[in-house]
Amino acid sequence: MKTAIVGGGVIGGGWASRFLLNGWDVSVFDPDSQSERKMQNMLSNARRSLPSLYDFKLPDEGKLYFCDNLEEAVKNVEWIQESVPERLEIKQEVYKEIQKYCKKDTILASSTSGFKPSELNEGATRPEQILVCHPFNPVYLLPLAEVVPSNKTDPLIVKECSKLLNQIGMKPLLIRKEIDAHIADRLIEAIWREALWLVHDDIATTSEVDDAMKYAMGLRYALMGVFEHMRLAGGEQGMHHFIKQFGPCLKWPWTKLMDVPELTDEFVNKIASQSDDQAQGRSIQELEKSRDDTLVGILRALRKTERAAGKTINSHNHSIDKNFLFKDKLIETVNRQIPQTWTDVNGHMNETNYLEVCSQATDKFMEMIGMDVDFIKSTNESYFTVETHIRHVNEAREGMKIIAKTQVLEGKGKKLRLFHILETDKGVIVATGEHMLLHVSLKTRSSCFPSEKIEKNLLKYAEEHSSLPWPEGAGRAVGQSK
Amino acid sequence: MKTAIVGGGVIGGGWASRFLLNGWDVSVFDPDSQSERKMQNMLSNARRSLPSLYDFKLPDEGKLYFCDNLEEAVKNVEWIQESVPERLEIKQEVYKEIQKYCKKDTILASSTSGFKPSELNEGATRPEQILVCHPFNPVYLLPLAEVVPSNKTDPLIVKECSKLLNQIGMKPLLIRKEIDAHIADRLIEAIWREALWLVHDDIATTSEVDDAMKYAMGLRYALMGVFEHMRLAGGEQGMHHFIKQFGPCLKWPWTKLMDVPELTDEFVNKIASQSDDQAQGRSIQELEKSRDDTLVGILRALRKTERAAGKTINSHNHSIDKNFLFKDKLIETVNRQIPQTWTDVNGHMNETNYLEVCSQATDKFMEMIGMDVDFIKSTNESYFTVETHIRHVNEAREGMKIIAKTQVLEGKGKKLRLFHILETDKGVIVATGEHMLLHVSLKTRSSCFPSEKIEKNLLKYAEEHSSLPWPEGAGRAVGQSK
Repeated sequence: MKTAIVGGGVIGGGWASRFLLNGWDVSVFDPDSQSERKMQNMLSNARRSLPSLYDFKLPDEGKLYFCDNLEEAVKNVEWIQESVPERLEIKQEVYKEIQKYCKKDTILASSTSGFKPSELNEGATRPEQILVCHPFNPVYLLPLAEVVPSNKTDPLIVKECSKLLNQIGMKPLLIRKEIDAHIADRLIEAIWREALWLVHDDIATTSEVDDAMKYAMGLRYALMGVFEHMRLAGGEQGMHHFIKQFGPCLKWPWTKLMDVPELTDEFVNKIASQSDDQAQGRSIQELEKSRDDTLVGILRALRKTERAAGKTINSHNHSIDKNFLFKDKLIETVNRQIPQTWTDVNGHMNETNYLEVCSQATDKFMEMIGMDVDFIKSTNESYFTVETHIRHVNEAREGMKIIAKTQVLEGKGKKLRLFHILETDKGVIVATGEHMLLHVSLKTRSSCFPSEKIEKNLLKYAEEHSSLPWPEGAGRAVGQSK
Repeated sequence: MKTAIVGGGVIGGGWASRFLLNGWDVSVFDPDSQSERKMQNMLSNARRSLPSLYDFKLPDEGKLYFCDNLEEAVKNVEWIQESVPERLEIKQEVYKEIQKYCKKDTILASSTSGFKPSELNEGATRPEQILVCHPFNPVYLLPLAEVVPSNKTDPLIVKECSKLLNQIGMKPLLIRKEIDAHIADRLIEAIWREALWLVHDDIATTSEVDDAMKYAMGLRYALMGVFEHMRLAGGEQGMHHFIKQFGPCLKWPWTKLMDVPELTDEFVNKIASQSDDQAQGRSIQELEKSRDDTLVGILRALRKTERAAGKTINSHNHSIDKNFLFKDKLIETVNRQIPQTWTDVNGHMNETNYLEVCSQATDKFMEMIGMDVDFIKSTNESYFTVETHIRHVNEAREGMKIIAKTQVLEGKGKKLRLFHILETDKGVIVATGEHMLLHVSLKTRSSCFPSEKIEKNLLKYAEEHSSLPWPEGAGRAVGQSK
């Protein structure tokens, strides 16, 4: 399969990347001399991120051709994606030119965020192959594409376009009635205008507007959109009741932009029944549970990159970290609740997360001997795990409190051998983890001796634990009979 | 520390849950007889989700008291959170009553989404202790709280309120100039109105509006808000250039709500310089990289619960799954790229994700013998991992292609023993994983023999692999000398 990208800016480059990484060949036409460089940059971003969404290898990357003229780019391709500047007369000119060379059944799609397909196809030789296919930046990561046919677009072209969008991992949203700016950009613009007023009137800075968005509604919008969220806000009394009650508030002088549709019975019924269809019979309780599980996942993802709400949680997380030693000299290296996002099809904590807990315990121990993240970054020294053995003794489930008790089995020279006992707060052992680590230089990526300070701190625990009995299961191989 | 919750609905209950789970005692006053039941429901939701955000145990849960009268609830507490219905005269009445009994230095905060603090404090005995502290549903998960003082509010109360919000894991956003509906709800309402028009005019259904939101902008808003995103859209030429160029579009007749602030030079400069402050010197390239890493994390989180864009990626993920056998009879059970979200402080794939890859390999093998998710759910039979051994041989890094080759070491009766070799697409071994699994009934949670079909399928591979040499490292214990 082959696509032609006409106009290779941020949007055209995003399309090219998505097609290429899904195995399509791509030919590009853009008179800008910088176009090839910019597209290669974008492609290297995309190579890093798009495959990261999947658990399987994407098809082998397609071939990328930069063409000297439009004809070379658009002949004999299955799809032509136009992303030239947002000026109607330019776009109309480009379509006339493209249609001189392209096949009759090629999809001829525009990335326009504003124009209607019936405007784009004015004066075109074959309006039936033209439609809007409007993506969002970064095109290689965000799945939405608004598909907007004119009343002259061949239904087969619409169908084929939607099918192929699915094949490159996108979500086609068919817009049945063409309007300026389609759907998504109308919502974006509504927000954008209100945001400009807030800054204009010195109510808030751009940073405060962004905070207001990303610490609350942004988190909800990523999973629910506008109406699904309103359904939950309405609670058990349902959507009809909610709109009736809430509607009049919209008439209050709260924003600069005031015109609100009349809430006739008919209109209220329409919203309520469409919202019922969306819920597919799920109760408010089920919707709330799913919402919470997803928010937990999103928030934990934001923690990873220290972005937006993730920052707040990280600093709170830090503030609740505590050190604790048990009477038997073992160290409490983990004390936490098992998140619901760790549950798998077997109804208990996935094996991966047992190691995640052990890994947290190891990190905590390293921190206690002075090897925290700041130390690692400033000295370029760390420990690498070279071997791990996990025994599953009992099932750990969502919501359980889990504690790790850590014993140093060996801590001398380059070697560090740790044994973690994972138990519930009721004292039931659920698993053990045994780990051999080597002290390494992050520069040479080879083992080396730790600094005096680390060695001394480690030795203190190693000596203290040398009198403890050898823990059950330590030194055991998989499947060993006793 | 103790807080009083006056009005125990969805918002009051959310506040109570957040306070309790952060170790505060909470007294509740709400005349509704259903209030206690509803709050207990919300608290059990919160117990499941709030601790899941953290890697450490939250403080021991505080005590919850339901009070028969307002006096009992509000005396001797550090914080009173009012969440009674949104009617100004009711709220004003409640404040007069509260101030008869509460301490003078108690924070007296309202959850109001619409009223200004200078309206709330009209007729109050001590306006200096009253302010708005506006949260978002679900209060126990979303971190934002808009803190809005009136010009009579004691600055010490504002400071204390912000400090305590931090202590219960929230992000206080100080609104310096009180306006109706504060900041966040103005943005929400702008979207809400535009969405109502789209449904009203039959351009889109509620479901289509939601899709337009959650498959694109929603994902961006969760991490960037409005202006940070616009900065990226503007690219290398900067925010000033972007606003100048983009601004005029806002005047086009694209929405029902048209009033736009005049884009004077002064206003354009203001936005550009505020946006520069936000970027803190980071280049567009740095911002793009961080955006992509975070989007990958959010999208992978959405995959877990099959919500919104996660559904699209899951179905695409499914469509690229392939089976493959190597010449030496080993099975290719994983073939994927290592996501950037798997990188840790040591600059390579975290140990947890090595097991994640092994676990994916095991799942794939189970699928190949007929034990896929549908089979597990319908028969209530599965395999549990009881023991795992991982050897780290070389470093695996972000962006590398990784392949798992799987050998069946034992597959008879209840036992399944698998050995996965993880190598790069260049054939370099990075790790091995050895896993003992037991066939179990998910009803009794005990081991049992597999069905004939599964046993037969397993035996086929077990017999085929019985002629293969014993792999290096299999049967090894941690730290074994040879």
